Amino acid sequence: MPSPDFLPKIEPHGDTALQTRLQHKIDHKTKPLGALGRLESLALQLGLIQRSETITLTAPQMVVFAADHGIAVEGVSAFPQAVTMQMVGNMLAGGAAINVFARQHGFALQVVDAGVAADLADHPQLIKRKIAPGTHNLCEGPAMSLAQAGQALQAGMSVVQSLPGNVVAFGEMGIANTSAAALLLARLAELPIAEVVGRGTGLDDAQLAHKQSVLKHALVRHADVSEVLPVLAALGGFEIAMMSGAMLQAASERRVVLVDGFIAGAAALVAHALAPRVLDYLVFCHRSAERGHHLLLAHLKATPLLNLDMRLGEGTGALLAWPLLQSAALFLAEMASFDSAGVSEKNKAQEA
Amino acid sequence: MPSPDFLPKIEPHGDTALQTRLQHKIDHKTKPLGALGRLESLALQLGLIQRSETITLTAPQMVVFAADHGIAVEGVSAFPQAVTMQMVGNMLAGGAAINVFARQHGFALQVVDAGVAADLADHPQLIKRKIAPGTHNLCEGPAMSLAQAGQALQAGMSVVQSLPGNVVAFGEMGIANTSAAALLLARLAELPIAEVVGRGTGLDDAQLAHKQSVLKHALVRHADVSEVLPVLAALGGFEIAMMSGAMLQAASERRVVLVDGFIAGAAALVAHALAPRVLDYLVFCHRSAERGHHLLLAHLKATPLLNLDMRLGEGTGALLAWPLLQSAALFLAEMASFDSAGVSEKNKAQEA
Repeated sequence: MPSPDFLPKIEPHGDTALQTRLQHKIDHKTKPLGALGRLESLALQLGLIQRSETITLTAPQMVVFAADHGIAVEGVSAFPQAVTMQMVGNMLAGGAAINVFARQHGFALQVVDAGVAADLADHPQLIKRKIAPGTHNLCEGPAMSLAQAGQALQAGMSVVQSLPGNVVAFGEMGIANTSAAALLLARLAELPIAEVVGRGTGLDDAQLAHKQSVLKHALVRHADVSEVLPVLAALGGFEIAMMSGAMLQAASERRVVLVDGFIAGAAALVAHALAPRVLDYLVFCHRSAERGHHLLLAHLKATPLLNLDMRLGEGTGALLAWPLLQSAALFLAEMASFDSAGVSEKNKAQEA
Repeated sequence: MPSPDFLPKIEPHGDTALQTRLQHKIDHKTKPLGALGRLESLALQLGLIQRSETITLTAPQMVVFAADHGIAVEGVSAFPQAVTMQMVGNMLAGGAAINVFARQHGFALQVVDAGVAADLADHPQLIKRKIAPGTHNLCEGPAMSLAQAGQALQAGMSVVQSLPGNVVAFGEMGIANTSAAALLLARLAELPIAEVVGRGTGLDDAQLAHKQSVLKHALVRHADVSEVLPVLAALGGFEIAMMSGAMLQAASERRVVLVDGFIAGAAALVAHALAPRVLDYLVFCHRSAERGHHLLLAHLKATPLLNLDMRLGEGTGALLAWPLLQSAALFLAEMASFDSAGVSEKNKAQEA
């Protein structure tokens, strides 16, 4: 099955000539070759995304996609489903972790109602794109219809189209969404479900065993789906689908995309399956403590910037990594070169 | 041998009653228990250092200690010794990596001439504390006298006394100083020299083998020293000794101390050997790619915040981690609690 024709076209990022020029610029800064490590590969990626030897990061946007999950009735989360709606309220009131870090780093914050199981009052920071009040319980049938999956992808695309700037960070809120993410990972990366199911918001051993059992049966229930869109519809969530569409749109506009943890990673997995080139535009910010995330990152050959043993979601890991992107842009712009600073380069090997 | 009597007294940080209050405050923020991972333990440490349930970080200072090393004549570095002086010039001109990150994060930057092998012109950001124009070649005798080691420790103390604010970050510049750091680590942590010698600024395989051979012989040459101060004198460097004194003084004033990579880690190792309590005040910011640093961190039971495959020194790893300290302070101050936000707490286990 080909990718849906409404998906945006993603161009390759900068060419090898630009890559050579950027690497030369990086290598002639006053430091040992490669000594800025991951910051150097980050500068290279950002330059290629922007097709420029200088990096300009403007009007960064934080978008949190929120939705509920029918599978929550199976007891796969440590928190009640109402927490999705309550945490959206907390975010709109400015009290969640993501608000704190967005204020710290100057990100504009929007919350998207992708499918919360409650009517939400209007708010200047709330974008209403509800596909339905929560997905169906995927243990009993597909989480959503193919049409809804397409709608969610397109809604994510249009959310990004409405945003200013050239940097977008994506996060999420949705009780039970580690279940959906684990199922997508198991199916799309062909991994054993037992290796990708984690404790989410804090399951104990017995609860984790129950979650594993539920998800194992769910995978069997949906053994017939393997193409991306049907998999997304059967196993996904509205916030995940919308985030996938948002990532594809952002990449098509050559924006820098900050990817948060396990759930955002699952959205990246879906986006990658739909359009592999999206990866060039994604900066993986954070390795979550949620089990399975390291396997997801390995599948995408992604090296995240931070590893702080966090597992909160919301986009928190993405925003904590943001200053490193600024550092990458700044060292490329402001550091002296060996020539300009009159610093001796490395000793040459002795000639015979 | 007791620690020198000029060393400052370091008080224990906050008590268990404060620790309990801080942990309670952290645990009732609107997030799953422990979900902010390393940021939570960081908030706890900062609160204990400041003996307060709120964290206030003021006037952060970056101090780069620079010095030369007599052992450079043995060909243990990829760069010529003159680069120490040249990089000090680069820093005073604003063109080094540390300048870029200090500007980014609002750190005042001072460079201390702890023992550069050149006369340096006056500069508003240069603090002149030269013990001697470079250490002696430690392959032929102690790098410095016991009196010089004491002078360097005291100079580091007085540098900190002159600084405002309650946060200090320490970095260094000194061609061949990974050799001194590796020797201190091998002796003080009783580790095999082969496991702690790395490529520094970029040695190739043959050069690395030579460095290992030189350092192995140096350790044999100084087999008779084991007490901290004689070890520091025999194997250390002026910038390392001064940094150790600066860490002890900063801890005695209950400042937050940002520790950079391998060389700063060696200074922390010396400071810890002189006054173990100093560790409470040190925030290990970065795991260097330099071989041996992970062993140094393990010896001090330290978990660094970042692991970005960097090996530049100067204090760069310390400053890149700085926004995480601000994030820790901010989430503690600004995040809503479950009560204040009206968010449901975790499901209780079913009663029988």
